[in-house]
This record gives sequence, C-alpha cells and structure tokens, in this order.
Amino acid sequence: MSKLTIYGDTISGNCLKAKWVAERLRIPFDWKETSVVAGETRTPAFLALNPWGQVPFVVLADGRGLAQSNAIMLHLAEGSALIPGDAYDRAKMFEWLFWEQYSHEPTIAVRRFRVTFQRLRGDERDRELETRGNAALKRMDEALAGRRYFVGDALTLADIALVAYTRWAGDGDYDLAAFPHVGSWIARVEGDLGLRAEDAR
Amino acid sequence: MSKLTIYGDTISGNCLKAKWVAERLRIPFDWKETSVVAGETRTPAFLALNPWGQVPFVVLADGRGLAQSNAIMLHLAEGSALIPGDAYDRAKMFEWLFWEQYSHEPTIAVRRFRVTFQRLRGDERDRELETRGNAALKRMDEALAGRRYFVGDALTLADIALVAYTRWAGDGDYDLAAFPHVGSWIARVEGDLGLRAEDAR
Repeated sequence: MSKLTIYGDTISGNCLKAKWVAERLRIPFDWKETSVVAGETRTPAFLALNPWGQVPFVVLADGRGLAQSNAIMLHLAEGSALIPGDAYDRAKMFEWLFWEQYSHEPTIAVRRFRVTFQRLRGDERDRELETRGNAALKRMDEALAGRRYFVGDALTLADIALVAYTRWAGDGDYDLAAFPHVGSWIARVEGDLGLRAEDAR
Repeated sequence: MSKLTIYGDTISGNCLKAKWVAERLRIPFDWKETSVVAGETRTPAFLALNPWGQVPFVVLADGRGLAQSNAIMLHLAEGSALIPGDAYDRAKMFEWLFWEQYSHEPTIAVRRFRVTFQRLRGDERDRELETRGNAALKRMDEALAGRRYFVGDALTLADIALVAYTRWAGDGDYDLAAFPHVGSWIARVEGDLGLRAEDAR
C-alpha cells in the first residue's frame, strides 16, 4: 500500500476540496500539481491515467483511481464527522452537493474563470452568469440565515464543497457584501479549515 | 407516519428517477403530478412547500421534505442493493451521479426539452448541446463496452440516474444508433425497471 496521490490544480476550487478533506482528516497524501490552463490534463500520459481528462483525480493507496471532486470527498470522508450520521441530515448534505454541481459551480466558478483567466466580461454570457450566480448566492444566504453551517450545527462536506468557489466569488465580479450570511459563513469555514482569508482570490 | 409523497412531472426524467426507485424497492408512495411547463412549480402554494421551486420534491413519511433527484434516490435506496456495499464501487457510483448532473443532464436533457417542448433546433446553442451531448454519450458507450452496468455487475443508482434522459436522447435529435453499448444497456435497464421501450419518448 502506498500513499494517496491527489492530482490537482491549486487555482481550482474543485481540486482544493479534495486537499482540504485529506488535511482535515489527517490522511497523508502527495499533491501532484497539474495545470488545466497549461493543458496538463490533456496530455497522453494524463489521459492514460484518467480518461476523464480532468482534475481533481486521485489515485488511492491501493492504486485505484477516482474522479469527480464530490465523489472523492465522499470516499475520503467515509465514516468521519464530515458526513452526518443522521439519515435525513445526510440526505440534506447530498441535496447541497448535487445543487453545487448543477447550479453553483457552473455559474460562480465559470464566471470567475472567464473574468480572471480569460479576461471575458460584459458579454451576453457574462450577464447570464451574473444573474444565475447571484440567484445561487441569494439561495445560500437565505439558507444560512440563523445557521452556522448548511446542515445540522457542524461542518460537513456541503460546506466544504460550497466554500471552495464561493470564497473566490469576488474574483468573478460578484459582490459578496450583498450576502452577509454567506460572508460570515465563509469566514467560519475558512477558520475551521485553517485557511487564511488573505489567500482567497 | 403517513406515506411518501412524490411531487413530479412525468415528462421529467429527473422526476421518474424517484418514482422508479420507490417502485423497485416497493416503497408505497403517492404521486402528485406537478407540471413544470404549466408553471405549477412556481405557484405560492408549491414554493411554500419547496422553496427550491423544482420537481422532483418528496415529502417523506415523517413530513420532512427533500429535493434534488439524486439526493432523493440516495435517501430512498439507503441500505438496498441499488447502492453497492463495497466502498470503492460506491465511490464509482457517486462519480457517475455527479457526472450525470454536471455533464449529462445539462446537455442531453436540455436539448431534448428545447427540441420537444420549445421547438428550438439548429441554433448556436443547439449545436453546442449536440457536440457536448455526443461527447457524453461517447463516454458512456466506452464505459459500457464489455459491461452490463456502470458499476460492478448489478443495477445501481448510477444506471437509474443515467437511463432517465438517455432513453429519451432520440427526442433531442441525438442518434443512439451510433452508441451500440448504450443502446443495449438502455434495453437491459428498462427491463430491470419494468419499463416498456415503447413508452420511451
């Protein structure tokens, strides 16, 4: 048995999810920096490893591979306090995990990528992402009113999945000041994960 | 304790996922037909029940609500053979469930909705959905070569999630004949679920 290997790009929130869960649960791992922008997920060598051609991708200690950020988190966190023991709370966590991939990442993360790395802003697609992303942030703000975390009263994978790109939303021209519950929740989760707010981009 | 209630629209594959899992596991339920096209998910009464304003939405036997098709399936199927007992197989099932929501539903289901219900075809968005949807179908076809199901050798939630819109892909102008492994898998899963192929639209 060797050690967990995480192939990831540190500019990708999806990749950091896997890193944060491994760190939080004290699972030893090697991080292999793999740049999406530089095409390193599309080389023949990487595609032989992971036909999905995406990061994050992990090679588990037993040599088997796994893709999809939320699937990786669920596998690493199995049996830990990051997954609620109560069946209904666990179902609510899944609700947020699937919502994150369907409604949050394709707006908040995509707009941040366009603005920050492609210098694309103000076009029709940007305006669509602005509207849909603000709707997602509003939904989060309403859910967090009077709550410390998304599910129950403790940090779960729902918070880790959602904080990854939400803390960078300002880079995508979203105004986080308009969502005060989201703002205080970001600070709380950053504290739990030992992240420094000034690292947020 | 009362009975499970599923609010769903029978033209939505996401809604049928919940129905199929309940039927397969012999969980008694009431089906409340709720038309998206007719705006029934946006009425004040429905929004009071489900602020997400979406179907499927279930009210569990204990009165608590749950949204997101894959989260609903996971909750209903907990402890059943539809979720692999092996940790790695379970992780692979999650890989497909998240991929379905991120890469499959937003292309295959969206194009079918545009073509069938909005009579939108041939525009730039249609061509983008054609390319991305065909890439998703190709990925499924490769994964299914030499396999009966997506994970292990038995029906899991991965198959149920993916068959829901794949069996209707022809309605979205995709040519399923180009993906023979997908075609035989659809017939197999339809058989397992007791669906009649001629019901496919």
